[in-house]
Amino acid sequence: MRRMSESSSNLLEKTVVIVGVGLIGGSLAAALRSRKLVQTIVGVGRDAARLELARQAGLIDKSSTDLATAARQADVIVFCTPVDRVAQGVREAIQYSGHGTLLTDVGSVKQPICDALQDIPNFIGSHPIAGSHRQGFEAADANLFEGRTCVVTPLPSSATAQVDRVERLWQGIGMRTVQMSPGDHDQALAMTSHLPHLVASALASTLTEANQPLTGSGFRDTTRIAAGDPDLWTSILLQNAQHVIRGIEAVQHQLEAYKKSLASQNGPQIKRLLSEGKQRLKNNE
Amino acid sequence: MRRMSESSSNLLEKTVVIVGVGLIGGSLAAALRSRKLVQTIVGVGRDAARLELARQAGLIDKSSTDLATAARQADVIVFCTPVDRVAQGVREAIQYSGHGTLLTDVGSVKQPICDALQDIPNFIGSHPIAGSHRQGFEAADANLFEGRTCVVTPLPSSATAQVDRVERLWQGIGMRTVQMSPGDHDQALAMTSHLPHLVASALASTLTEANQPLTGSGFRDTTRIAAGDPDLWTSILLQNAQHVIRGIEAVQHQLEAYKKSLASQNGPQIKRLLSEGKQRLKNNE
Repeated sequence: MRRMSESSSNLLEKTVVIVGVGLIGGSLAAALRSRKLVQTIVGVGRDAARLELARQAGLIDKSSTDLATAARQADVIVFCTPVDRVAQGVREAIQYSGHGTLLTDVGSVKQPICDALQDIPNFIGSHPIAGSHRQGFEAADANLFEGRTCVVTPLPSSATAQVDRVERLWQGIGMRTVQMSPGDHDQALAMTSHLPHLVASALASTLTEANQPLTGSGFRDTTRIAAGDPDLWTSILLQNAQHVIRGIEAVQHQLEAYKKSLASQNGPQIKRLLSEGKQRLKNNE
Repeated sequence: MRRMSESSSNLLEKTVVIVGVGLIGGSLAAALRSRKLVQTIVGVGRDAARLELARQAGLIDKSSTDLATAARQADVIVFCTPVDRVAQGVREAIQYSGHGTLLTDVGSVKQPICDALQDIPNFIGSHPIAGSHRQGFEAADANLFEGRTCVVTPLPSSATAQVDRVERLWQGIGMRTVQMSPGDHDQALAMTSHLPHLVASALASTLTEANQPLTGSGFRDTTRIAAGDPDLWTSILLQNAQHVIRGIEAVQHQLEAYKKSLASQNGPQIKRLLSEGKQRLKNNE
């Protein structure tokens, strides 16, 4: 009896539809379920066999390859698809969902999505800042979001009640929520996420076969995220191109300063550059 | 009795002097001791109080702030000092050490050290490729070297017996050894270690205070090594400047390719660049 009462006190939503049951969608399902925040989780995707495996793994209760069918029963729909497919998915879903249904996403770029959907007050953009270079629901982790930040990007046209509701959902799985404009989000994430990915990839590209046995933990740490899915990251980088280009220029500026200091054997200047980088990390601890 | 016989069968050297008991020197001491490879470990440094703490921590048997005294009793002397102090230390030590004493170091740059010491057949350059962004003997780890590669850089003038001996020492603590010329080593490590450090630092420098809450595991992984000691890394970068500059140019080339592809929204080209980086990592698994 006690267990039931606890369970019902946690309950935030009845039926949550998760579109795209990969690492993020699967982890969201696991987090909602382990905290008993929702009654029913419906997974939507294109591959029925994969969805069935996710169901057997205990991540979702039901699955469907038909967004329309799932949308009809949804209280909340969370799009965990690649960023270039979110807007289209939301437009399709709202043809079938009830007028109280909350729609959100987890995309790493927000401006293009929120611009495209600004006529839909029930769509509130989200970006839970959590992830891994691993892929697929097999890597799902109920604690992936715990203690991390989720950016929520409402527009002036957004329904206030839905903004509160989406924040409660992310807070329910252990996240801090912060509101930002889509543009501010994209500018910041270009620097904290998209640029590091691209720099890690540029560095990984310089590794020759002969040098492989001579890599240590430094090389591995620095390039780890370059193992991410190229399709996924191509979409992200393309959609946030202008901000990312400015980030590349900032790194190029630093690299040029290093190059000049090395060429002139300017030790104090190299130490200054290294100390500056170290100091920024310290502030981030 | 069994324990003693095992212990004596492991024994490689009687007295090993470790100059510089920090992360690497301390880990070497711990590794030699835990495997019972040596009888006595003498730590040499400038700070008597720190050395006493390392002794109390069980890393070394004896300590001295006087290299001359320690060198007189040494069968092997390993210099774990910053790269710009190795050659001078070796020159001082050989005034006091026996003619059979093996001298080696752990420096990340080999050409300047080996060039400066080419008249000393008993000095064999080494670089155990293992480390951490942590500093000090407090972070010492007896298994830091296990399964990793140690580059040994003999010269034509090196004593063959000492080359074998230094390789046995590194192999004794679980390392694979590989022989390279000092120049080949420096060219390779510029790409696999010095360049990643500098790139991580350049990236860390771009982090603003406002963006700190918006960093995730990707940013943290990619910049982790930038927390290393700026003095130590200034020496390394200065001593390997020419190779590192060529490394910077290789990364600049990749960043420029990304910038052009982003500016022209060339998705297939971005995907090609990302896939290339990912592929290099796959080969390195």
